[in-house]
Amino acid sequence: METIKIGLLGCGTVGTGIIKLLTDNRHKHEHYVGRPLVVKKILVSTLDKQRDACIDPSLLTLNPSEIIQDPEIDIVVEVIGGISYAKEWVKLSLAQGKNVVTANKDLMATAGEELFLLAAEQDVDLLFEASVGGGIPIISPLKHALASNRIDKVMGIINGTTNFILTKMYQDGSDFSEVLELAKEKGYAESDPTADIEGFDAARKIAILASIAFNTRVTFDDVYVEGITSISARDIEYAKELNCTIKLVGLATEIDGHVEARVHPVLLSLSHPLAKVDDIYNAVYVEGDAVGDVMFQGLGAGAMPTASAVVSDVLQVAKNIVKGVTPRDNCSCYEKKKIVGIEDTYAQYFIRMTVADRPGVLAQIAGLLGNNAVSIDSVIQKKYCQGKADLVLITERVQDKNIKKSIEQIKHLEPVQALESLIRVEKDS
Amino acid sequence: METIKIGLLGCGTVGTGIIKLLTDNRHKHEHYVGRPLVVKKILVSTLDKQRDACIDPSLLTLNPSEIIQDPEIDIVVEVIGGISYAKEWVKLSLAQGKNVVTANKDLMATAGEELFLLAAEQDVDLLFEASVGGGIPIISPLKHALASNRIDKVMGIINGTTNFILTKMYQDGSDFSEVLELAKEKGYAESDPTADIEGFDAARKIAILASIAFNTRVTFDDVYVEGITSISARDIEYAKELNCTIKLVGLATEIDGHVEARVHPVLLSLSHPLAKVDDIYNAVYVEGDAVGDVMFQGLGAGAMPTASAVVSDVLQVAKNIVKGVTPRDNCSCYEKKKIVGIEDTYAQYFIRMTVADRPGVLAQIAGLLGNNAVSIDSVIQKKYCQGKADLVLITERVQDKNIKKSIEQIKHLEPVQALESLIRVEKDS
Repeated sequence: METIKIGLLGCGTVGTGIIKLLTDNRHKHEHYVGRPLVVKKILVSTLDKQRDACIDPSLLTLNPSEIIQDPEIDIVVEVIGGISYAKEWVKLSLAQGKNVVTANKDLMATAGEELFLLAAEQDVDLLFEASVGGGIPIISPLKHALASNRIDKVMGIINGTTNFILTKMYQDGSDFSEVLELAKEKGYAESDPTADIEGFDAARKIAILASIAFNTRVTFDDVYVEGITSISARDIEYAKELNCTIKLVGLATEIDGHVEARVHPVLLSLSHPLAKVDDIYNAVYVEGDAVGDVMFQGLGAGAMPTASAVVSDVLQVAKNIVKGVTPRDNCSCYEKKKIVGIEDTYAQYFIRMTVADRPGVLAQIAGLLGNNAVSIDSVIQKKYCQGKADLVLITERVQDKNIKKSIEQIKHLEPVQALESLIRVEKDS
Repeated sequence: METIKIGLLGCGTVGTGIIKLLTDNRHKHEHYVGRPLVVKKILVSTLDKQRDACIDPSLLTLNPSEIIQDPEIDIVVEVIGGISYAKEWVKLSLAQGKNVVTANKDLMATAGEELFLLAAEQDVDLLFEASVGGGIPIISPLKHALASNRIDKVMGIINGTTNFILTKMYQDGSDFSEVLELAKEKGYAESDPTADIEGFDAARKIAILASIAFNTRVTFDDVYVEGITSISARDIEYAKELNCTIKLVGLATEIDGHVEARVHPVLLSLSHPLAKVDDIYNAVYVEGDAVGDVMFQGLGAGAMPTASAVVSDVLQVAKNIVKGVTPRDNCSCYEKKKIVGIEDTYAQYFIRMTVADRPGVLAQIAGLLGNNAVSIDSVIQKKYCQGKADLVLITERVQDKNIKKSIEQIKHLEPVQALESLIRVEKDS
């Protein structure tokens, strides 16, 4: 019987997971596709490394051309990560008429358009479910099972490292730097955690989700990003008092044909479904005009969850090959919508400051906010220590540029000793 | 430009929602499919009824043959519900080489095999996403986006009526009958609520999910069913004390090639993702060997959520027609696995009884359970009123036949005044 032949670029933990899954469930996969799947070659960076028993050493190669140029290989799976080599080899593979499955969010969030053009020229599939949310099916439901809807909003907890850190801070009242060390110990944070804690990883993922949801190209550079390094235990205390938690979210909306995409911490009402997604779990919450709100939750990282998404993509491509219909999906970005700059976005804000503890301070600050068209929704004021008070304001929904202007002015008010925090708020579910 | 032509069987609230959605989002749909979709005929039971403005009266017909026999119609959408006419017309449509999209859980849970055979003979698609979980994408992710996994367990809150009732009972401490009346007032329960509160609706849905998850036919008759009518406010009080809630779940597992499918209330640990799914929301929790646990959550009923799923299915079929690949999916039940009878299943149990408040009673009951191979995990005993005590036992994981035998014997013990409740427990997430 004819087989579908796979070439694997990269054989780290995810690559090994892919081989294991293709081996363990091969009978189910063969039934699904109608033909057996066979891994023909595996590109590695060194041959003499100890590997899992499921890896056949005779398949290893140091030469990418042995995969890319092999006319027998139907599907190239890229799990190298990063951009430089991955991009070069994915482009060469597409140019050779190979179908490609990738788990690479960096690549898709920066070079998606270029790759889709190549795939369309060659009539091949380019799938990338594993690039967002690890094993959680989110890209394919958003593209297909929700295709009937106009999507209005996508909001996701799409970075496990920061969700672990914020969950621990919420549960134990501990400080950011302390929990970051714990996350490193547990292997949930890398030794250089910048991409996670500064929100860059989440920004790549929300760029991908926004592109699919709104049928317009949104790249990493279009996404406004704030990380979680300035979130303090005290912010979380106040969040609790306001029946909220603090989460790092990727958020994308379309309003009147204008698209917003941003990553930042939010005070999230405890009644919101995402508020209950803790630890290293990821979840993506979607609002559609017909479906209402739906949420997809699961493990957003790890070798086997990622392999689950990659191999499911391989099965779709393989089925398409058998049916003779690659590419089944064209690039879904057929529109060119305006991306809204952060200064023109609207949000509710949580503002926390240390002020002199004397009469008239709140009136002075409230007056200044009013002059900048910033209305106040609620206030908490508490004595902090001798002569100092904590002042916490929640604003109504206001424009970003007005809040920024207000903050600049507030900082210079005599009674304001420190502007501690400025965090957006998502109250409605 | 050539169009894809749709015939709609039924035009109630869901049918109207479908027409509205096909109208509102037609540009997006045309992009997705590559051709415009057109509703050509709508079967109704009466012509002279007030209808939504989106319904073109010239499309209405009283004669199903005008749809089924029309050679121009590519896709028949069935939203009549029930079995008799729906089954007849779906079969006739398939026999005429029409692709069929249905929202009909009764039909799929009883006649799925017969319909799939017909669809395969005719090389047409038969899709039914809306039959489980309303708008939540669950059937297509389970079939495709999780296809790489061996699925071990599916557990869902798949009936909104009972979830609303149990949520209210949990939140307000109210009794079943009281909340049922409220649910009727709010339109969440029908005037005859039997199918919902006795678990039959959920049983049809778990039969469908189990068939897909385990690649073997599971019908409504294979599902063990208990409803929620005997759940009392007192059970819920104890559930709270045990850090649990009570939910009606559909549960299907495969262990060593043997499949179990059942619907019954469970005491569910508050740490389980499903425990946080409240009100009329539905959610399906899936365990796969690679993906770990994933959960899909959203509105399980309502005209527009159901229309979302139906129209998304229509878009898949339409795309398959354009690509020339119907049927893309064959019936996934290619195995014949043994269905385990309820007496051979294992579970933890919550047993609540009223006993005489005197020494030695617990010892007597514990001894009896021990003789039937039932181990006890934990005990709560409380004075109830003069001379009476509440005795609550949580067992270890034990076989159903042993618990049933124990209960029969316990009932006849002299100090046992009433066996109040026997509810299964799901503690691990």
